[in-house]
Amino acid sequence: MTPFRARQVTIVGLGLMGGSMALALRGCVETLVGVDPNPLTRAYAVEHDIVDSATDDLRAGVADADAVILAAPVRTIINVIQNRIGSYLRSNTLLIDIGSTKADICNVMGALPIGVQAVGGHPMTGKEVSGVEASDATLYHNRPFVLCPTRRTTPATRLRALAFVEALGAVPIEMDAARHDRVVAAISHLPYILSAALVATVASEGKDDDAVWRLAAGGFRDMSRLAAQDLGMMGDILGTNTQAVATLLALFRMQLAMIEAMLIGHDDEKLADLLRPAREARLDWVKRLEGKP
Amino acid sequence: MTPFRARQVTIVGLGLMGGSMALALRGCVETLVGVDPNPLTRAYAVEHDIVDSATDDLRAGVADADAVILAAPVRTIINVIQNRIGSYLRSNTLLIDIGSTKADICNVMGALPIGVQAVGGHPMTGKEVSGVEASDATLYHNRPFVLCPTRRTTPATRLRALAFVEALGAVPIEMDAARHDRVVAAISHLPYILSAALVATVASEGKDDDAVWRLAAGGFRDMSRLAAQDLGMMGDILGTNTQAVATLLALFRMQLAMIEAMLIGHDDEKLADLLRPAREARLDWVKRLEGKP
Repeated sequence: MTPFRARQVTIVGLGLMGGSMALALRGCVETLVGVDPNPLTRAYAVEHDIVDSATDDLRAGVADADAVILAAPVRTIINVIQNRIGSYLRSNTLLIDIGSTKADICNVMGALPIGVQAVGGHPMTGKEVSGVEASDATLYHNRPFVLCPTRRTTPATRLRALAFVEALGAVPIEMDAARHDRVVAAISHLPYILSAALVATVASEGKDDDAVWRLAAGGFRDMSRLAAQDLGMMGDILGTNTQAVATLLALFRMQLAMIEAMLIGHDDEKLADLLRPAREARLDWVKRLEGKP
Repeated sequence: MTPFRARQVTIVGLGLMGGSMALALRGCVETLVGVDPNPLTRAYAVEHDIVDSATDDLRAGVADADAVILAAPVRTIINVIQNRIGSYLRSNTLLIDIGSTKADICNVMGALPIGVQAVGGHPMTGKEVSGVEASDATLYHNRPFVLCPTRRTTPATRLRALAFVEALGAVPIEMDAARHDRVVAAISHLPYILSAALVATVASEGKDDDAVWRLAAGGFRDMSRLAAQDLGMMGDILGTNTQAVATLLALFRMQLAMIEAMLIGHDDEKLADLLRPAREARLDWVKRLEGKP
């Protein structure tokens, strides 16, 4: 495969993800341009050589780009695609987004002018901290980067997108958008909702008895972490993946109801039979993770 | 308060918790005795000076003790209290357990012979690893250690138990057993069940699509950790705290149902209104934790 090379790459959205991408692309791009509405973010990114130049003008920022990356929350990406960007791009510009849900984004990408080479993307990486100041050239290293085809993905588009992902040091995984959205509903969006509902339950107990907060320890710490995620980002995600999330919630309730029935019935053996495969699945997954490079 | 001093302390159960306790008590006890059924565990504990001597004979191990600590799973503790230990102890021996649920244990402690000074205990600490090899003298440092009174807790018993907890470097928190069990149902047992049900749901998806396992990342890692806990230990905990856990499950389902209704109804604003207090409660709790010494 031809390695990724570009004269100009424009990254729309200079947060942790966009900034880290800029750092990772340094070696294979002549000019890196950032588009961001926040003047402090732009100034920081230029001062720290994360990008070569930055603007708040989307049209000017993308006009001369060989590749444009949309690194913003899902609904901002959809808005940018629907309302403006198609007419600003040169023909054959590679357009990739990194939104957390893919069906809606890939759908609007499919309505872009013919000639735009558009692919949906979702890198499975992140950090506790956000913002351009947290940018890290290794953020994408060895992490899965999902690529989802759109009606504007030609065979050439696909090869360019694969090369782009490898330039980041990430591992491309290709699948259609619906499949992606179902998978992340299970491993990411359902866990978020459970974490939030758990914290709401514990907080309600904590109102009556402060000992709840004083005794909460490592188990609660892990299980409550996702509840602190950014509400705007999560609102976009849940709002654009409602069907898959609702399906997973229904499946989760079935699992919970079975455990509950055995618990209340004091059927210790059947309860253990239900909990054992979950224990083994978690242990197997950790082994698999550790076996990875 | 008089500091804790003892001629002989016997620890029944030389796992991570019992071994760490022995290490922490070194300075204020003349002789540390361990009771454990596993000869390899006993040999390790004696060789590494965790205890001075070890036996598998409960009667012999506790006969000369000033204080006895039951450091075993909940139902083993109950079994030891109900079947044997009362008649082996000298009068005025301090008896503390460290089981994860307290109502059943404190109840059977209340039926011990008058003269046994029995208190229920639950240190809120632990490690990913288990076993005497993982013993750590600082395991209890600055961690909450719940003490629950029983019918065999005299005012003198209470003072000795408080001194014992401080000797470990832990922070004593006194409350009745029912309150303790409700609190830990919320912060520990409910989270475990949610983690297990989540892993069961994800594993069921993973059977149809291996991408589930390939894409699972940090969020799933945190939310699935508790599912790997020891089944025997968790079976004892759930079996001796069924009512409180079932109550918390019912309260959790209410929180989940409200989130789900707003999600499916695409009522973004009300959904955010539900998720916001959970986010803030988690952030407040983390701040509170960090403010601690």
